[in-house]
Amino acid sequence: MTSTSPETLIVIGGDAAGMSAASQARRLKSPAELKIIAFERGRFTSYSACGIPYWVGGDVSDRDDLIARTPEEHRAREIDLRMQTEVVGIDVEGRRVRSRNLKTGNDVWTSYDKLVIATGARPVRPPIPGIDAPGVHGVQNLGDGQALLDTLAGTEGRRAVVVGAGYIGVEMAESLMKRGYEVTLINRGEQPMSTLDPDMGALVHEAMTGMGITVVSDAEVTEILTGADGRVSGVAAGAATYPADVVVLGVGVTPETTLAKAAGLPVGPSGGLVTDLSMRVRGHEDIWAGGDCVEVLDLVSGRLRHIPLGTHANKHGQVIGSNVGGDYATFPGVVGTAVSKVCDLEIARTGLREKDARAEGLQFVTVRIESTSRAGYYPGTSPMTVKMTAERRTGRLLGVQIVGREGAAKRVDIAAVALTANMTVDRMTALDLGYAPPFSPVWDPVLVAARKAVAAVRRARG
Amino acid sequence: MTSTSPETLIVIGGDAAGMSAASQARRLKSPAELKIIAFERGRFTSYSACGIPYWVGGDVSDRDDLIARTPEEHRAREIDLRMQTEVVGIDVEGRRVRSRNLKTGNDVWTSYDKLVIATGARPVRPPIPGIDAPGVHGVQNLGDGQALLDTLAGTEGRRAVVVGAGYIGVEMAESLMKRGYEVTLINRGEQPMSTLDPDMGALVHEAMTGMGITVVSDAEVTEILTGADGRVSGVAAGAATYPADVVVLGVGVTPETTLAKAAGLPVGPSGGLVTDLSMRVRGHEDIWAGGDCVEVLDLVSGRLRHIPLGTHANKHGQVIGSNVGGDYATFPGVVGTAVSKVCDLEIARTGLREKDARAEGLQFVTVRIESTSRAGYYPGTSPMTVKMTAERRTGRLLGVQIVGREGAAKRVDIAAVALTANMTVDRMTALDLGYAPPFSPVWDPVLVAARKAVAAVRRARG
Repeated sequence: MTSTSPETLIVIGGDAAGMSAASQARRLKSPAELKIIAFERGRFTSYSACGIPYWVGGDVSDRDDLIARTPEEHRAREIDLRMQTEVVGIDVEGRRVRSRNLKTGNDVWTSYDKLVIATGARPVRPPIPGIDAPGVHGVQNLGDGQALLDTLAGTEGRRAVVVGAGYIGVEMAESLMKRGYEVTLINRGEQPMSTLDPDMGALVHEAMTGMGITVVSDAEVTEILTGADGRVSGVAAGAATYPADVVVLGVGVTPETTLAKAAGLPVGPSGGLVTDLSMRVRGHEDIWAGGDCVEVLDLVSGRLRHIPLGTHANKHGQVIGSNVGGDYATFPGVVGTAVSKVCDLEIARTGLREKDARAEGLQFVTVRIESTSRAGYYPGTSPMTVKMTAERRTGRLLGVQIVGREGAAKRVDIAAVALTANMTVDRMTALDLGYAPPFSPVWDPVLVAARKAVAAVRRARG
Repeated sequence: MTSTSPETLIVIGGDAAGMSAASQARRLKSPAELKIIAFERGRFTSYSACGIPYWVGGDVSDRDDLIARTPEEHRAREIDLRMQTEVVGIDVEGRRVRSRNLKTGNDVWTSYDKLVIATGARPVRPPIPGIDAPGVHGVQNLGDGQALLDTLAGTEGRRAVVVGAGYIGVEMAESLMKRGYEVTLINRGEQPMSTLDPDMGALVHEAMTGMGITVVSDAEVTEILTGADGRVSGVAAGAATYPADVVVLGVGVTPETTLAKAAGLPVGPSGGLVTDLSMRVRGHEDIWAGGDCVEVLDLVSGRLRHIPLGTHANKHGQVIGSNVGGDYATFPGVVGTAVSKVCDLEIARTGLREKDARAEGLQFVTVRIESTSRAGYYPGTSPMTVKMTAERRTGRLLGVQIVGREGAAKRVDIAAVALTANMTVDRMTALDLGYAPPFSPVWDPVLVAARKAVAAVRRARG
């Protein structure tokens, strides 16, 4: 009797997608069947990058709380995890990767039977003067978070400028405010939260101003100013300059596909790796990719998009691990759901913005309603604005945006499921949603919006 | 040129379904086209019966806050509303109703072209000795609420017994506790909240006990005991007696269809009027019915059920008013969603319980998971138990029950929409739900349950 030697799975990237894939594959295959080697160039595995703003803001006191599973825990599950080891080349033909031990500088080649690419995304750093000055921080990984906290601890001034008003920017604005900083948020777009339509972004703008955050819109940062000590002293944007003792960059990320591109793997219109529904890289039988380095199918528009979110990365990892482990799973796509919070303001969106719908050639109607989180008479009820977009003629739901207080954000899940099911707004008006005075008005705000959208669709039909 | 005289719409019942129908019909038809007469035997219109526990508990200070629209407001919209006037007969053949002015005792006949029956439900009062003693209260309408408050104000003792542990019972238990009463909840079933499976009801039991409420299960109330003054003094249930200064009944309601049955209109297996999808009473072209007096289609089981809930009543009224007003709308049915709260405990359910699924001949798998409302590291995160039932083989979602704290109840809406869309648990695992640390773990608890359900379905397939 001969025993077959195990196959080797190599995973590049030790965060959400990569380690979820490794863990799920390990659940399905024993070490005798599958050897799993994972390379991580940093010092942490499986951490919540989304939690960094709350750690910086002091809501989470201990960095380790953000770590779902340490290298030791992964190793205990028989994953051969190589920390501070960067993969510097993929030889697709030869089925091997070249990795570099960042402590020793030594390179080695390791062969694989199956490969998972989970290299994540890298923050955009605008190529402007002063961008590398001390006191300018990104917040992409735990190391960045620690560096920012060190800067905050060692800085006397209390003026912070946040560049970028996407969800990381607004969350960081809150964090810095909580730490006692005077915060200026500089925003290239017309309104903060450009993932919302501008009319909804305006509500965020107004609320943030009310919290004491200075919001500067339509402003392109052209230079980071530095003082005599070489440290950051301000930010120049448009015709104005904003003094700053610390600058946080939240201007978005781009898929980290340097390795993959060099290896000839396919990338799509937004620069992410292109996979099939099983998260296998198109055209490559034994290579999978997931997380922030891939593009995902937007089920509403039918287009590929790059949506870096931890929740997607975890799902990708689960799907990849199932398939690599010999089971079967698919990732059908996303509808573009995102929620965020600035102090007690809750912000949510799913589906298409008006400009997305227009770009897809869709004709649509849009309605906006004001409602409340609970019955109007129930203590703690808070106002909520819901915007809903539906296709003309068919009445198919296209998108929902919500800005409100407690109880607002997660209501977007109703619309996320309805989008997934291709529901019309007419059908939505009869949805059997949970009602009791502490949780909702008798017509849930989403239903109020759906009713108004039905009327708008009807009018648009003529 | 001759002008045609307007048609007459008669509405029986001035609460949610009836007045929503009247208001919607009025929006669509002017008084020159449609005369609307509404009869209400009580003194209030369009009030939130669901809000009564919060009024009694002191969360809502003013009774009028529970009134969405007063008689005067309805009259200002040209609805001829006749208060304290009870309809005592329907002459279907003659298209007229006989009404009685409860102040004068006078009866008159009024003719209709179209009729809406919205007579609601009446509370079950067990036929046991002492049930009519002073100090025993139902909480069906605002008058009941006021009577209970008057009793509480005039009673020195602080022992309350609540009979029935459905949502009204548990909400009243909270209200009375908040008012400083020692509360005993007597419950015929195995566990409180029999709308949940017993294993989930047990979590409610445990939590209520932790709040200081005495929960007595498997106990049938046989007698209301009275003192020398004739007032309630206790409750006998099983072999035990429970001293009581006040007793609140929350043992359910039954559709109020006395009039409709006398008129020969069709009632279904649970005693409610039977309508088609446009809420028209089956077999009667010009009669509609909605609210707590009708049966609704359960979309999961395909059966007619009686589900008295304000949110359904409002939807029915909207649909009826649209159809009566010459527009078109339907009420496709419900999936059985309900949410409630006892202090900070949140309880939710949708779809079929295990026993419902069994009664429908379905084979199914059931899973139960523990998760949290927010990321584990985020302040204020709280535990949540989610139970999910899925059909064997197909994996179709059949039901979800949730017991937790803040953020638990409204998550059931995800499942409510998924049930409406006939989703499988497999498809649910990829739902693009809102994720950010303040709102959810990276896998939403509903997704965690769906993943476990997928595995269970697979095992059950063999």
